Amino acid sequence: VRALTDLPRTGDTAAAVALLTSLELPAAIDELERVDDATRALAVAALPDETMVAVVERLDPSLQRDLLARLDHAQAQHLLHALDPDDRVALLDACPAALREQLVAGLEPAEQALTRAVLAHRPGTVGRRMSPEVAAVPMSSTVGEALEDVRAQAASAETIYTVAVVDEANRVRGVISLRRLLATDPHVSLTAAMSRPVTVRTTDDQELAAQRLLDHRVVGVPVVAEDGRLVGVFTVDDAMLVLEQEVDEDLARSGGTEPLDRPYLTTTILGTARRRIVWLLVLIVAATLTVNVLNAFEDTLAEVVALALFIPLLIGTAGNTGAQASTTLTRALALGDVRFRDLPRVAGREALTGMLLGSALAVVGLIPAVLVAGGQVAVVVGVTLVVICTLATTVGSCTPLLVQRIGLDPAVTSGPFITTFVDAVGLVVYFLVAGAVLGL
Amino acid sequence: VRALTDLPRTGDTAAAVALLTSLELPAAIDELERVDDATRALAVAALPDETMVAVVERLDPSLQRDLLARLDHAQAQHLLHALDPDDRVALLDACPAALREQLVAGLEPAEQALTRAVLAHRPGTVGRRMSPEVAAVPMSSTVGEALEDVRAQAASAETIYTVAVVDEANRVRGVISLRRLLATDPHVSLTAAMSRPVTVRTTDDQELAAQRLLDHRVVGVPVVAEDGRLVGVFTVDDAMLVLEQEVDEDLARSGGTEPLDRPYLTTTILGTARRRIVWLLVLIVAATLTVNVLNAFEDTLAEVVALALFIPLLIGTAGNTGAQASTTLTRALALGDVRFRDLPRVAGREALTGMLLGSALAVVGLIPAVLVAGGQVAVVVGVTLVVICTLATTVGSCTPLLVQRIGLDPAVTSGPFITTFVDAVGLVVYFLVAGAVLGL
Repeated sequence: VRALTDLPRTGDTAAAVALLTSLELPAAIDELERVDDATRALAVAALPDETMVAVVERLDPSLQRDLLARLDHAQAQHLLHALDPDDRVALLDACPAALREQLVAGLEPAEQALTRAVLAHRPGTVGRRMSPEVAAVPMSSTVGEALEDVRAQAASAETIYTVAVVDEANRVRGVISLRRLLATDPHVSLTAAMSRPVTVRTTDDQELAAQRLLDHRVVGVPVVAEDGRLVGVFTVDDAMLVLEQEVDEDLARSGGTEPLDRPYLTTTILGTARRRIVWLLVLIVAATLTVNVLNAFEDTLAEVVALALFIPLLIGTAGNTGAQASTTLTRALALGDVRFRDLPRVAGREALTGMLLGSALAVVGLIPAVLVAGGQVAVVVGVTLVVICTLATTVGSCTPLLVQRIGLDPAVTSGPFITTFVDAVGLVVYFLVAGAVLGL
Repeated sequence: VRALTDLPRTGDTAAAVALLTSLELPAAIDELERVDDATRALAVAALPDETMVAVVERLDPSLQRDLLARLDHAQAQHLLHALDPDDRVALLDACPAALREQLVAGLEPAEQALTRAVLAHRPGTVGRRMSPEVAAVPMSSTVGEALEDVRAQAASAETIYTVAVVDEANRVRGVISLRRLLATDPHVSLTAAMSRPVTVRTTDDQELAAQRLLDHRVVGVPVVAEDGRLVGVFTVDDAMLVLEQEVDEDLARSGGTEPLDRPYLTTTILGTARRRIVWLLVLIVAATLTVNVLNAFEDTLAEVVALALFIPLLIGTAGNTGAQASTTLTRALALGDVRFRDLPRVAGREALTGMLLGSALAVVGLIPAVLVAGGQVAVVVGVTLVVICTLATTVGSCTPLLVQRIGLDPAVTSGPFITTFVDAVGLVVYFLVAGAVLGL
């Protein structure tokens, strides 16, 4: 690995190339994503043509952009030419608009047209992710004719494992897998052998399309325009990238941060801080609510200081209970196991679950409370635990459903948001219970 | 949808079947996963054969088990026979051992052998997930001969898009895609056209294998035994299921709970509570540490009750900051962007990030502190924020690396765990700073 990390000092590009080509491709990419931008550009520029394209195609998009900016114009243009249209668009998407236009203008007319067709669609849609190089056969063919037809398209098409069957107007009338084509008598008519088409539209959300592909367990789906005409294909490798990006977002947001847009070690510290500060500011402003609640009960606190000892335990437990419910429901929503109309059922289930959990926790929480603060405060802590756990599971479970209903990402309501809300309400409950039990 | 939900009352299986067959397969499954076990069994038993197999194959494993227990023996045996070996094993895995043995014994000898071959491997390994029906061709063939060979295997093989090239001892010497076979001159020798094989072993962890398939962007990889002999194929649809399950686990654990083992609405309330209570108990016991810390500083608290007002804000902020860092690093570890040996670099970066974040938050936190409690307490709050944010990011980022190093799942250290730890330490910092600034 030294051959790569020491490259800026030694200038020995041959050694770096020898290292990278000796590794399996994913391992080579891992190493390249750990070094700084200048070193990476130096090593990649020295790679043999075919390897260079394979490497660049799979680099993180943010690193592709840096790389492109560091290659000379001829190298950049060569690289762009060698990529498949969908990978090319991913790379162009990462470039500033001026450079993008310049690079597209340098492509051959046919490649330029294919690329512009994809770039015309909105980011986040299937149209922007698809490959326009789709394998298609006319529905009037026999299976044997179709197979020959597909064979002729094998060199250029993005995939030939999913073949669209089209009518004279290029509308998709069916789909046939290459496997079925090979396994069927060549004289059978295509219409007898094809299946009902599972398609997606150019305007569809890319995540929904990826999930659709997964649900149908296919390796590709034809992409159609609004009028039903065939315009491309969306394949399983692109679907997996889309879903991985979505998982990235969900995991990051469940931790109250925005996902990084480049590999961790290549981000700057300021860049990392920027992705986190917005949420922290929102949450600290929300947390001033707890200051106000406690301020309102300051006299009670002054009278029974022991009440303060259990504040972190109580709000921590409520936060954890709420986060569990919200995590579970956010995932159930994503998997389609739960819908908005299930709200009353979910609320009922979770209220009961929360009461159960709160009762079990109250038993455990009573022990330190009795030891440290005596029986009366212990009763306050126990009762509060039951009430706030019930509250936390109910709020934690219903919020994701409501948030998705109004069109936002339910993952952002997980963890931190619920916690902060439950903190404030939990404190009010605590002091009300304390007032009642202790007669303050 | 009423045709399905009202089935127990109406007994009109024809209407339920008409509904289910009119839907696309994934939609039909969604509906079946929302009704109770008895209704589901009633509807599935009435489906036409081919649809029944397609439906059962994709049902959640926990629901497959229930279903199997409710079908009569002949139906269960028929169903099992119709499934592919890998789907069959998934279903058998969900059954109690006695029922499993009985069902396997009822299979035809050839099917029984295939099934037992897969069942012999440990759960969680590739061997348990693979399909033994792998397409393979001898390395002495020409491309044309190989293509004919593959064609003959099209009906039985799990996939024919990835073809293993084997020597006389059935060891994998190369891989060739069906696409390459079709696009290459039939007279070329197979050894000239094939690629270096990307394979996985039966004993490999299924998640690592799935990630390998994804990294290489292929739709299948040959599975080899310890001695290099070909024994099966691991395909992209199984890889996607494995990765989805892994995401389920990571998301659940980041929220401090264990993943559900069946769709949300079909779980019992006790089952849901059981998946959550263990973590909550661990966390509440850990939280008694905060009670002890506060107890130790009770005199300080009694003297300056205003200090209590900021406890939730401070520990909440520290918890959020720590959760962000731990979420980011857990994900970076999963993606391979960070390794254990990066620990010093990570700690340095995160300490600096935490200091930056803490300083920004201190400015915001000062405002309510000045208004509610005056200048001196405000200074205490501000200084504490900087210190605990630095601490939280450092601990939050290093813990996942350390936990993975000792062989545990770093996802379990996210959120709740870090929060509870940082709470206790944060409170100590708070009172030490208070003591210094306020001269207590």
